[in-house]
Formats: sequence, structure tokens, C-alpha cells
Amino acid sequence: MPTVFVTAPPESADELARTLVEERLAACVNRLACDSIYRWEDEIHDDEERILLVKTTDEAYDDLVARVRDLHPYDVPCVERFDETDVLPVYADWRDDAVRTRSDD
Amino acid sequence: MPTVFVTAPPESADELARTLVEERLAACVNRLACDSIYRWEDEIHDDEERILLVKTTDEAYDDLVARVRDLHPYDVPCVERFDETDVLPVYADWRDDAVRTRSDD
Amino acid sequence: MPTVFVTAPPESADELARTLVEERLAACVNRLACDSIYRWEDEIHDDEERILLVKTTDEAYDDLVARVRDLHPYDVPCVERFDETDVLPVYADWRDDAVRTRSDD
Repeated sequence: MPTVFVTAPPESADELARTLVEERLAACVNRLACDSIYRWEDEIHDDEERILLVKTTDEAYDDLVARVRDLHPYDVPCVERFDETDVLPVYADWRDDAVRTRSDD
Repeated sequence: MPTVFVTAPPESADELARTLVEERLAACVNRLACDSIYRWEDEIHDDEERILLVKTTDEAYDDLVARVRDLHPYDVPCVERFDETDVLPVYADWRDDAVRTRSDD
Repeated sequence: MPTVFVTAPPESADELARTLVEERLAACVNRLACDSIYRWEDEIHDDEERILLVKTTDEAYDDLVARVRDLHPYDVPCVERFDETDVLPVYADWRDDAVRTRSDD
């Protein structure tokens, strides 16, 4: 099952996370405070950000990424998919139930 | 080598982490503060949690998951395994030494 | 594309991250505060650390790890590679541009 790693500015992270869960594209979103140093237009920036760890399903993944693109304030957001190699079955079942894809509507 | 991703309430995270290291099921546990928004019994909750990144070995993995189930206060805890594709050899050796599985007892 | 997971003491994390980005071995480094409990020389320690999530490329990976070894204050640093299974193309392109390997020099 995918965990989608997204970084966002602090002021938009909570709303982005809540929308993904409300719209059942994610079962859960963990938000973590971080500092990010990066190169942008050949200058180095060091900004406060939030990391979102978005817990979703294989079936909902494409819809989720499309929705993140809609909602995200950056033109070039960090959106990366990491797949676990094992998950507690009872947690996987809950995740499946909490996430609905278009085919379920 | 597995990194086991576990979320837990703040009040039980430290003890869970310490027990796993004391019992040599984990070499190290990183604990991070996070906010988690999720759907439970059809309501959306937004709670403070701790993410535990539990560094263990292939051999100890099953024992570790069983022990997390014993100790964890949730009925449906997030327990996910992520495997790295490369690790610094000297760190891997240390990890192997720090973790003991039942067959070592 | 690799995300390299490195832990470091708080007092050296920022400089390590900045050097990797300045030297174009990383496009971005997220730094997160954490508490780490671990076994070292048969004693259990619980220290404040920083997790660095270093966003780099396949081509720069070996140079990056070598440079982390140079700069890191620990003899046995946690340096682990995790590879995503999917990444937003526009972000991947930016990352490729921001990271330069020796063959580019």
C-alpha cells in the first residue's frame, strides 16, 4: 500500500491533509514539521515546511496525486510514492475501508 | 534491513520504544512528533501522535511485530515495514549486533 | 530516485545539509527533530537527534554517501537509502537539474 510523501508550506498543509481524508482519498495523513534546504533558480533557500505522509491504497493512488496537484500551492511539489513491504493486516483492512475510489462511487 | 513505521499516542511512545531496545528487538527507535488526521468510525479525528521508526533486522522482524501488538494501546495500530535498498555496512553491522532474536537466546 | 535517511546530532545537522546542497550532491534536505533511543557499547542512550531526508539522484548517490562519511561526526552514522516507486515527473526533472555528479564537472 502506498505512503505518499508530500512537502507543503505550513499554512496549507492542514487543509490539504483534511481535504484528502474528507474526500476519502487517504485514510490518514501524518503531518511533521521540518526545515528544508534546497536549490531553487540557482539560489539556496532554507524554509520551514510540513511533511505529509499520506496513507492511501493502490486503487486510489492516481486520483490522490491528481487531487494533490489541484490543491498544492507549489508549481513543483515534492510528491513521492513509497510502498511498504509488509503491513499489519488489521491496519490494511481499515485503510481499505476508509479510502474510496471513483469506482466505488 | 527493515525500518518499521509505527504510530502511537504520545503517552505510550517512549515506553514502547525503550522496551523494544531493552529487549533487543530493535537497535534504535527514532521518535518524531506529528499530527494525524484520519477517519475512524466514520468521523474525522485530528490527534497528536508519535511516529516511531524502529530499526531492526530481518530475523527479528516477526518477533518485533508480535511484541508491538502486545504493548500497543490501539486495537488497529499502524505497523508498516519499509526496506532500504542500501545501508552503510558499518551501520548494518552495528544493527545486527544490537538486535538479538530468540534463536540467539 | 534515492532518499537517503541520515541521523545526526542537532549541532551538525544544518551544516551537513547545507554542504550537500551547496555542493550539488542533493537537491533538497528535509531536517526533522527526533528523539532516538539506542544501544551503544551495551548501554541504552536516549538522545536528541535530527533526521535528514536527503533527496538525490542515482548518479550522485555514491558521491553523496562518501561526502556524508567525510563530514559526519559519528564513526557509525545511520545512512540508509530508500527508493520511491513513483515520483511526480516535474519534481523529478527539477531534482535532476539541481544535482550535479562528478561526470558533469
